[in-house]
Amino acid sequence: MSKINASDYFFNGNGNFKIKETRTTLPLFYEDKKDFKKQLKELQKDIDSLQEMMYAHNKWGMLVVFQAMDAAGKDSTMREVFKRVHPLGTSFYSFKKPSSIELDHDYLWRCMKQLPERGHIKVFNRSYYEEVLVVKVHDEILHNYQNVPKELIDEKVWDKRYEDIVNFENYLQNNGIVVVKLFLNVSKEEQGRRLIARINEPEKNWKFEEGDIKERGYWNDYQQAYEDLINATSTERSPWHIIPADDKKNMRLMVAQTIKEALEALPMNYPEADEGRPEELKRFIEIIEGQNEIS
Amino acid sequence: MSKINASDYFFNGNGNFKIKETRTTLPLFYEDKKDFKKQLKELQKDIDSLQEMMYAHNKWGMLVVFQAMDAAGKDSTMREVFKRVHPLGTSFYSFKKPSSIELDHDYLWRCMKQLPERGHIKVFNRSYYEEVLVVKVHDEILHNYQNVPKELIDEKVWDKRYEDIVNFENYLQNNGIVVVKLFLNVSKEEQGRRLIARINEPEKNWKFEEGDIKERGYWNDYQQAYEDLINATSTERSPWHIIPADDKKNMRLMVAQTIKEALEALPMNYPEADEGRPEELKRFIEIIEGQNEIS
Repeated sequence: MSKINASDYFFNGNGNFKIKETRTTLPLFYEDKKDFKKQLKELQKDIDSLQEMMYAHNKWGMLVVFQAMDAAGKDSTMREVFKRVHPLGTSFYSFKKPSSIELDHDYLWRCMKQLPERGHIKVFNRSYYEEVLVVKVHDEILHNYQNVPKELIDEKVWDKRYEDIVNFENYLQNNGIVVVKLFLNVSKEEQGRRLIARINEPEKNWKFEEGDIKERGYWNDYQQAYEDLINATSTERSPWHIIPADDKKNMRLMVAQTIKEALEALPMNYPEADEGRPEELKRFIEIIEGQNEIS
Repeated sequence: MSKINASDYFFNGNGNFKIKETRTTLPLFYEDKKDFKKQLKELQKDIDSLQEMMYAHNKWGMLVVFQAMDAAGKDSTMREVFKRVHPLGTSFYSFKKPSSIELDHDYLWRCMKQLPERGHIKVFNRSYYEEVLVVKVHDEILHNYQNVPKELIDEKVWDKRYEDIVNFENYLQNNGIVVVKLFLNVSKEEQGRRLIARINEPEKNWKFEEGDIKERGYWNDYQQAYEDLINATSTERSPWHIIPADDKKNMRLMVAQTIKEALEALPMNYPEADEGRPEELKRFIEIIEGQNEIS
């Protein structure tokens, strides 16, 4: 059994990321189901404690971005990894097709509104990266729906978006909002198996639509778009974590480990008590007891 | 061991609710810790399944309002009761002291912005009911901070607020957003014990402030404010559930049971497949397999 090693699935912009040469599986990090559960539970508890300290410290915040092809396991992974955090300290937001009001704005507008407060973790299920994914693969969206002035759409439009996104993430980091970006990297074969399993499951298949497989026809275009954006937006401060997703349990352990390490890296502590604090706490107890007597 | 019976802790506005005659304890609904865990787990799973169906049905939404005196156990109860729901289908919001922007608006404005979408559960940790609790107990807030025109502040101001709130909740119910209101009813003695325990716990007491016990000095005023609002805003459609809170485990089971029953009462179902659906699903699988081959 191997130990999780971040450098196996981490790209900080040095060199050239090639998606075709990137593994969608890794040796297993767990012995068996029981060992997996034990490891995950420990990681869940560590994430909970660290988030609680971040909340008490009240300086840092964390934005976790999940991006992936369909059926890579985004939903279930975020559910499992954050299972033990306090729901008042960690929240989740799913970005869907933009509404007409959202389309009347610049594309970061709706994301800005969902950013975490200090002390909190916010998990984005999809994100502003869709602007260089689905919008790039189907670039008619830019012309027909987003109403971007045509003078601003030229061959550099995607490079400008990458630059905007890098600058936006730097701004967040400069302000104490740490950005953790996770790409769950599933193979086309495994995606196919999972989609078929979903169709065969009577309780899940009510929501299956032709659109869900139409996008799969653009597999190579999406892979290229992921490769391009990962090369363009991975930085020392905001690297992309490329998580092999063909084994769901392995993926969950890697994601949880990544979040834990990102939290551990923050210089933070519980507020320190000053000298007079023990006396003050004693006085509080006396007040409480007094209130009981006179009621 | 008794069975949970909603009519033991339920007030729909018929008669006269008297807080002094209301129990803060009930006979235990569990044999021991193991039995408690088993019962809670089952309720958690039921709530998850029902919320999932509500999400698929996509017509109803649910607003759960938690109100209580300090240390009654709001945070930990909501954490436990909703532990197994999908974080993308259930979210939480804590209302704090209003910001200056919020004070520039009517008092429901900031709550409206946090209402659930159809298919979702939104849990409010405190709510617009603070407007007839802390604002009533300290009515200088109304004059000094909320900037309500003084012509509108007379002896009927609280009755008007109750009426506004009842009308607002009726509006929500008329639109398919079900309102579930929970008052966690803790005794003054038990609150005292819990506050002292909190002060004695090194990892928790960093956040303890004099303000936390100052409000306890207004215990009787708050009790009166709760009694008044429960009498004024309990209706057939949006009753108050008054949950005895001196035993935390009992409280959690009662809250979970209440949420479960409220979800079960909704006429909902998974979308039904039409006649041609099995054929369509078969065709989807063929498409997926074809996509694998030609890639």
